Amino acid sequence: MIITLKKNAPQTEVERLHQMFEDEGLQVTLIKGVDFNVFGLVGDTSHLDERDIKANIWVENVQRVSAPYKLANRMFHPKDTIVDVAGVKVGGQEKITVIGGPCSVEGKEQICRIAQAVKEGGADMLRGGAYKPRTSPYAFQGLGYEGLMDLAAAGKMTGLPVVSEIMSADKIDEFEEYVDLVQIGARNMQNFDLLKAVGHIHKPVLLKRGMSATIEDWIMSAEYIMASGNPNVIFCERGIRTFEKYTRNTMDLAVVPILKERTHLPVIIDPSHATGDWKLIEPMALAAVAAGADGLIIEVHDEPEKAWSDGAQSLKPEKFAQLIEKAALVAAAVGRKL
Amino acid sequence: MIITLKKNAPQTEVERLHQMFEDEGLQVTLIKGVDFNVFGLVGDTSHLDERDIKANIWVENVQRVSAPYKLANRMFHPKDTIVDVAGVKVGGQEKITVIGGPCSVEGKEQICRIAQAVKEGGADMLRGGAYKPRTSPYAFQGLGYEGLMDLAAAGKMTGLPVVSEIMSADKIDEFEEYVDLVQIGARNMQNFDLLKAVGHIHKPVLLKRGMSATIEDWIMSAEYIMASGNPNVIFCERGIRTFEKYTRNTMDLAVVPILKERTHLPVIIDPSHATGDWKLIEPMALAAVAAGADGLIIEVHDEPEKAWSDGAQSLKPEKFAQLIEKAALVAAAVGRKL
Amino acid sequence: MIITLKKNAPQTEVERLHQMFEDEGLQVTLIKGVDFNVFGLVGDTSHLDERDIKANIWVENVQRVSAPYKLANRMFHPKDTIVDVAGVKVGGQEKITVIGGPCSVEGKEQICRIAQAVKEGGADMLRGGAYKPRTSPYAFQGLGYEGLMDLAAAGKMTGLPVVSEIMSADKIDEFEEYVDLVQIGARNMQNFDLLKAVGHIHKPVLLKRGMSATIEDWIMSAEYIMASGNPNVIFCERGIRTFEKYTRNTMDLAVVPILKERTHLPVIIDPSHATGDWKLIEPMALAAVAAGADGLIIEVHDEPEKAWSDGAQSLKPEKFAQLIEKAALVAAAVGRKL
Amino acid sequence: MIITLKKNAPQTEVERLHQMFEDEGLQVTLIKGVDFNVFGLVGDTSHLDERDIKANIWVENVQRVSAPYKLANRMFHPKDTIVDVAGVKVGGQEKITVIGGPCSVEGKEQICRIAQAVKEGGADMLRGGAYKPRTSPYAFQGLGYEGLMDLAAAGKMTGLPVVSEIMSADKIDEFEEYVDLVQIGARNMQNFDLLKAVGHIHKPVLLKRGMSATIEDWIMSAEYIMASGNPNVIFCERGIRTFEKYTRNTMDLAVVPILKERTHLPVIIDPSHATGDWKLIEPMALAAVAAGADGLIIEVHDEPEKAWSDGAQSLKPEKFAQLIEKAALVAAAVGRKL
Repeated sequence: MIITLKKNAPQTEVERLHQMFEDEGLQVTLIKGVDFNVFGLVGDTSHLDERDIKANIWVENVQRVSAPYKLANRMFHPKDTIVDVAGVKVGGQEKITVIGGPCSVEGKEQICRIAQAVKEGGADMLRGGAYKPRTSPYAFQGLGYEGLMDLAAAGKMTGLPVVSEIMSADKIDEFEEYVDLVQIGARNMQNFDLLKAVGHIHKPVLLKRGMSATIEDWIMSAEYIMASGNPNVIFCERGIRTFEKYTRNTMDLAVVPILKERTHLPVIIDPSHATGDWKLIEPMALAAVAAGADGLIIEVHDEPEKAWSDGAQSLKPEKFAQLIEKAALVAAAVGRKL
Repeated sequence: MIITLKKNAPQTEVERLHQMFEDEGLQVTLIKGVDFNVFGLVGDTSHLDERDIKANIWVENVQRVSAPYKLANRMFHPKDTIVDVAGVKVGGQEKITVIGGPCSVEGKEQICRIAQAVKEGGADMLRGGAYKPRTSPYAFQGLGYEGLMDLAAAGKMTGLPVVSEIMSADKIDEFEEYVDLVQIGARNMQNFDLLKAVGHIHKPVLLKRGMSATIEDWIMSAEYIMASGNPNVIFCERGIRTFEKYTRNTMDLAVVPILKERTHLPVIIDPSHATGDWKLIEPMALAAVAAGADGLIIEVHDEPEKAWSDGAQSLKPEKFAQLIEKAALVAAAVGRKL
Repeated sequence: MIITLKKNAPQTEVERLHQMFEDEGLQVTLIKGVDFNVFGLVGDTSHLDERDIKANIWVENVQRVSAPYKLANRMFHPKDTIVDVAGVKVGGQEKITVIGGPCSVEGKEQICRIAQAVKEGGADMLRGGAYKPRTSPYAFQGLGYEGLMDLAAAGKMTGLPVVSEIMSADKIDEFEEYVDLVQIGARNMQNFDLLKAVGHIHKPVLLKRGMSATIEDWIMSAEYIMASGNPNVIFCERGIRTFEKYTRNTMDLAVVPILKERTHLPVIIDPSHATGDWKLIEPMALAAVAAGADGLIIEVHDEPEKAWSDGAQSLKPEKFAQLIEKAALVAAAVGRKL
Repeated sequence: MIITLKKNAPQTEVERLHQMFEDEGLQVTLIKGVDFNVFGLVGDTSHLDERDIKANIWVENVQRVSAPYKLANRMFHPKDTIVDVAGVKVGGQEKITVIGGPCSVEGKEQICRIAQAVKEGGADMLRGGAYKPRTSPYAFQGLGYEGLMDLAAAGKMTGLPVVSEIMSADKIDEFEEYVDLVQIGARNMQNFDLLKAVGHIHKPVLLKRGMSATIEDWIMSAEYIMASGNPNVIFCERGIRTFEKYTRNTMDLAVVPILKERTHLPVIIDPSHATGDWKLIEPMALAAVAAGADGLIIEVHDEPEKAWSDGAQSLKPEKFAQLIEKAALVAAAVGRKL
């Protein structure tokens, strides 16, 4: 950690800080500069908060050198983590995982019908929302427990592992029992109590990026889950919020190589939420595969114009199947398979 | 609601949509344009989701005319809502409320000492975090229940109502009993289950703006709380996330007149989180008062350099008292008092 | 155009507006709503500015239905524009164009050496900056005219058309004579006098996206060039500014299908500026090809650590050649060639 | 400057870098850390570009300690710069300057009429655009030279110094002769050739912030003007681009105390462009005064609904006069006068 001190900091204060850092077991070097002095701290600084040190009025700036995360850090775990979701392996250098299904479960018949369709189209897992985070309290909020049962039934029928979003820690037992991959949505990426809760279960977690989360914030949320005992975290990019208005969000594909360099965890891409427009899903999905993503999660509905939510960003099953075919060609071009 | 249709939409599809909207009890006008046709819908459209209608491939665009919120809407409730927090009135045209206190409760002795200091400085309420949302799992997470008891004790001692952040619905009884103003933090602004939970209690709610929440998103979160039965919501701006790096966030003061035009609820400003830098708190607080804010919430610590969290954005008690004095002058200049 | 009027707008004002729009040759329909009334205007509204109409205090909102651009609009020019850059065709459904070269021309020897290397690596054109937009006045500002002559010489030697950025209209003759593709940089995307100037020359223009330009702003800047007489505009995405800090900018790949749907002009991608990090260039370039981009522009330097500018985002020639090979495989997978 | 090196950097490379920095006259300290090694450089590093050093593949990160600007830096020029605009003093601790006038000059009669009105309302200077940066090539582009002559006439008539935006260096003589305060607009904040051009004239410059410019970018643009010989630069905040849609831009008031701490130049605020909505101008103007701004620039039009541009964000003269009265009260409350 590098601490920049104001040139006019009193000698006693500089000495007090020096002592304080040494007392924390850190090795301290002082560099006297022209406009500022600088402390270089060597040792484990992960428990120090940059902002707490900045509270000292003689401190101009604090800069972390080592990353604040450990369990997720590639530096300490060089090998790729491959997450096993009820037998489907996510991550590694070869197979790219495809998750398909509707935004919301709308009933047993609907979810089973679409599950069958996405399976035929080439999906490895089935998605479906039972508890829905909706901006408006007057919008459909999901079928809840009943929807989760319908999803589980559709998973059983097709043999596809199922993915669904958890919105509250009090549903944790339900999810542990019936869901194979537990999703934390963008709006809850820093709901730390929920992160701790999913850190205590034995099912893997799909961690969506918050709408304005930096990559470091996002890794720290994975670290929360891992530090609570659950090592099986998959990152999912779903677009960030920018000034652009043609798309619902801006898909940030650079996260794929960055997360793979800095962490050992798999990364999948959600082009449905990232764009909000079904016409953009295919090109963005192909781009994600070319960039090295470990998977895709895509909204599929057989009657998008009647979907109870997010129809605008859902593909029809035949378009989904076409996308998978094309994505397989791109995957082959980058040495992977779908 | 205005729906733009592609010019090449088949006649049967146009008629089907027309019928569908009429079946929903809406009055429909079709305007034939040069490049597009347009449906104008009159009636209550609050249950329609723009994005669901956009799922139709012949729909180019959907534009809401009336706001999607009702209970929070000034149009239907012209009078200012004044929220009573254990006797302290927030909102209205006159008194500006000041909330002061440390980021975290660090023990009974600390919170009582600072409570006394902020009271002497002119605060109307006491803030203090017992459950802390921290980016890192390795950072201090708050004293929890014990901290809440310390805060309540300090409130009792000084007679100041207390404000604290709730992070999980399973603590709702604790908060309803011991906290006078229950805070929803920025990271949980769209934790809809938590919003519903605080919608069922009888204590007022301080709703912070999410880091990348639009004003409309934010009002919709207030609408969630109100629709669950709790009409006493206070908005709190704490800065939004932008590309600027000198400040922790960018304080968006335009929310004050906008929220006051569109809703009837009080708006307070948190210059501590909005800037992240104690040196910027005073000018930003004065600006907030001049812009018409109904209150200020300010972090105060008597030893910021030893604070367990957010010392960098905490004022010492004497600076806090000075700020209040200056803010009182600005308040008088705009016809209010502090 | 759709104009939302406040319900309490005086009848005389509504009638005055109605008349005013009819006098402009527009057909006007009035829809009386519950909370608002709405005017629907049919006809050519491209000369109306939404914000001017909003100046009327009885107007709540103005929404454009047709796009404000005409010459760039796919609706009126369904066929792809293929831009001829000194014999190299950019756009269309087949060949993907590759532009390579250093950020700055550093001398004749350097640019000729790198030109040779990028040609061998597979580039179709040579880039090199002679006039450099640098954030600091103390940083290297480019070799100017001399640099442009060196670039032209390198182009001649290798047979590669050359691309270079113009920063001021007073250099227009120089660029028209010596440069094959005239680049407008991100910082000048809304330097309207410069746009008009390049609209009057006979060389094609590479129009980079401004750091915070919406897609519509960007198309309007192309419209400026086209309206001044130059139909040969190529869009170039180079990343937008967001809160993310790991990358220099956030590359927005959704622009590729969006620009191709809304306009008829070619779109190329600059992964060097979009990421600022040479390690991210290859995956982002492959993603761009998969998303349907018509070309890539990539910074190449044989000694990045000694480059006079932007070494951090430059590839060595051997890495560039590898990238081209891999990109060719991805291009084939999406039915194109490199 | 602090340079973080990868732990596996070869010893020869570390020595080569060490030598290279010493050859630049810098004093180098090497700190050996756990995960990384760190070089601390002492001396004048303003000619080093962080990104050039990052080009070295063994460099993990580069962090500047001293600011990259000198002439604008408060550290080297502790006293406030007071800019004299044809006799009106901008900056310092006392008088707050008010600039009023229409977005566009629409003719001699109009500008003289409004000039008289703003003078009566309390303005110290007159603004008016003759060359207008418009997003659409089909929108009114300003009256040009003729408009500038009308503005100069209105200034002469009322005795108010005049402010107008320059869009191209080839108009520099016109502006030096007829304009008292030469404005660089947001879109040209990094049009470096134009910055150099206004750096060579003897009239002060009003430098608007770019839509997505960081404060440091903005100061560097001032540094460009100053380094070219013109020390009289006034900063003008006009809002930055964010995801928020209710306002045209997000006004960032924290720039006032930050620019005043880091530079010695005056800072004024443009609430008209920052909000885009006349109803928001007054509260934002009062906030700016309370935050310590040295001036306000406000769009005024006597018939906003007929204005040729930006009517939506223009105040009527009587509202402008009211605003000035209220602002004077707030100014008095913070120890200044209007």
